[in-house]
Amino acid sequence: MSISQALTPHDVRIQCRTKTFTAPSTAGLCPGYSQANVIILPNKFAADFRLLCARNPVSCPLLGETKPGNPQVPKALATDSDVRSDCPSYNIYRDGVFVQQKESIEKEWRDDSVAFFIGCSYSFEAALAKNGLTPRHVQLGRAVPMYKTKYRLCPAGVFGGHMVVSMRPYRLADLERVRNITRPFVKTHGEPVAWGPEGAKSLGITDLDGTNPDFGDPTEIQDGEIAVYFGCGVTPQLSVMDSGISGEVVGHTPGRMLMLDIKDEDVCVSF
Amino acid sequence: MSISQALTPHDVRIQCRTKTFTAPSTAGLCPGYSQANVIILPNKFAADFRLLCARNPVSCPLLGETKPGNPQVPKALATDSDVRSDCPSYNIYRDGVFVQQKESIEKEWRDDSVAFFIGCSYSFEAALAKNGLTPRHVQLGRAVPMYKTKYRLCPAGVFGGHMVVSMRPYRLADLERVRNITRPFVKTHGEPVAWGPEGAKSLGITDLDGTNPDFGDPTEIQDGEIAVYFGCGVTPQLSVMDSGISGEVVGHTPGRMLMLDIKDEDVCVSF
Repeated sequence: MSISQALTPHDVRIQCRTKTFTAPSTAGLCPGYSQANVIILPNKFAADFRLLCARNPVSCPLLGETKPGNPQVPKALATDSDVRSDCPSYNIYRDGVFVQQKESIEKEWRDDSVAFFIGCSYSFEAALAKNGLTPRHVQLGRAVPMYKTKYRLCPAGVFGGHMVVSMRPYRLADLERVRNITRPFVKTHGEPVAWGPEGAKSLGITDLDGTNPDFGDPTEIQDGEIAVYFGCGVTPQLSVMDSGISGEVVGHTPGRMLMLDIKDEDVCVSF
Repeated sequence: MSISQALTPHDVRIQCRTKTFTAPSTAGLCPGYSQANVIILPNKFAADFRLLCARNPVSCPLLGETKPGNPQVPKALATDSDVRSDCPSYNIYRDGVFVQQKESIEKEWRDDSVAFFIGCSYSFEAALAKNGLTPRHVQLGRAVPMYKTKYRLCPAGVFGGHMVVSMRPYRLADLERVRNITRPFVKTHGEPVAWGPEGAKSLGITDLDGTNPDFGDPTEIQDGEIAVYFGCGVTPQLSVMDSGISGEVVGHTPGRMLMLDIKDEDVCVSF
């Protein structure tokens, strides 16, 4: 076990807060612990955003939210955690356009800010690894590759847009095992939404060899493997960007998540 | 108020049970009361079906289910109701193929049968009517027109397939009011999923004048109106048909629902 794998989620958050976190992504960190996508909105959009999550739970599984103006992450998700500093980095958007990446967002946090925490598919990767199905990007020490798709979300008030998916290559013979292992993780995207060339086509994904994703890092699809696509927590970030709402919105940098104290089994259901 | 509108949901269920129900559909019956789509499966598929509903709540909002082998509708939904007789009619499918329509299904109900109750968009029609937006098919005394779409569901175990939508024509100027009125009905499909020619295109619907729906009755789209599409509880029925599971499956006949004792406000959330 490497040193980074021995860190606790709290250790990682403190590294982020003290700006000493250096890994390119949080993939594979703290195996067994959940990670969260973060999006921070003015409170006036909170009701529509909650509804977006409720109507699109596979790509937008809402784990929790802060009180308006209070940057403390809910204790049910992480203790002693400040959402303004505890992600490795943040993407700042203005009027839907990316402005800059920052390591902390004390200046951007406002009295009416609400931070939402969305489940992350990294959360089922320990379960996959335990079954000999370690995702390729973990083996390569990279962020998972992510794609914009043409799969339309069910709109909710001002929010709409399209699903983002993460991709992991697997042999077709392993597909049903991958589906079965990920199925219980209903709060972290669960089983795949599509797979193989037909799945890519239905999603409108043309990067069939995994070398040119829209977010995250390129991966390697080996001979005999197919692309397997999962709902991705970057979806709500893109939905917010595409919604045309004006003003400033902050999200975590894709692939660089907030580490939570809850464990993967806490986001599972029994079957 | 016509005589049929003065009936209670229990009255309608008794009419169905005694085979004296004669209306073509349950649209517009018992204003303010909810109605349910019904699908009856062998228990071995129940877990996958619940997950299909959880992953696709806009088209498959699960209101409740029976105990395996017990045909009593949960009291929380309807008192003194037997799912084998209390819908106006049922569609019987074998190996995914429609076999026949029946008025009761005592013979088809088995020891391992589980009936699932799915929210129905008829449930928000009273709210629309109250705001001067009575759906056209209610004005015409018909079932709502429904369409198969190319919108893929998030698969869940053995189940997958595509969303079915119901369609109501409205003037573009009324669209935001229609969205706002239907939004709170989160357990009965809620706000529209798409609208207008672009919406039809994204769903793969080519019947732009409403005269040739896949289920239900034709409607009339008047000058200046656009088609507005809502998630539809026939979706899970079609998903089950398309799943390739073998054996017998029973659903209500589209447009001819189970009348519930719960009221529309019981399936609403506050905003």
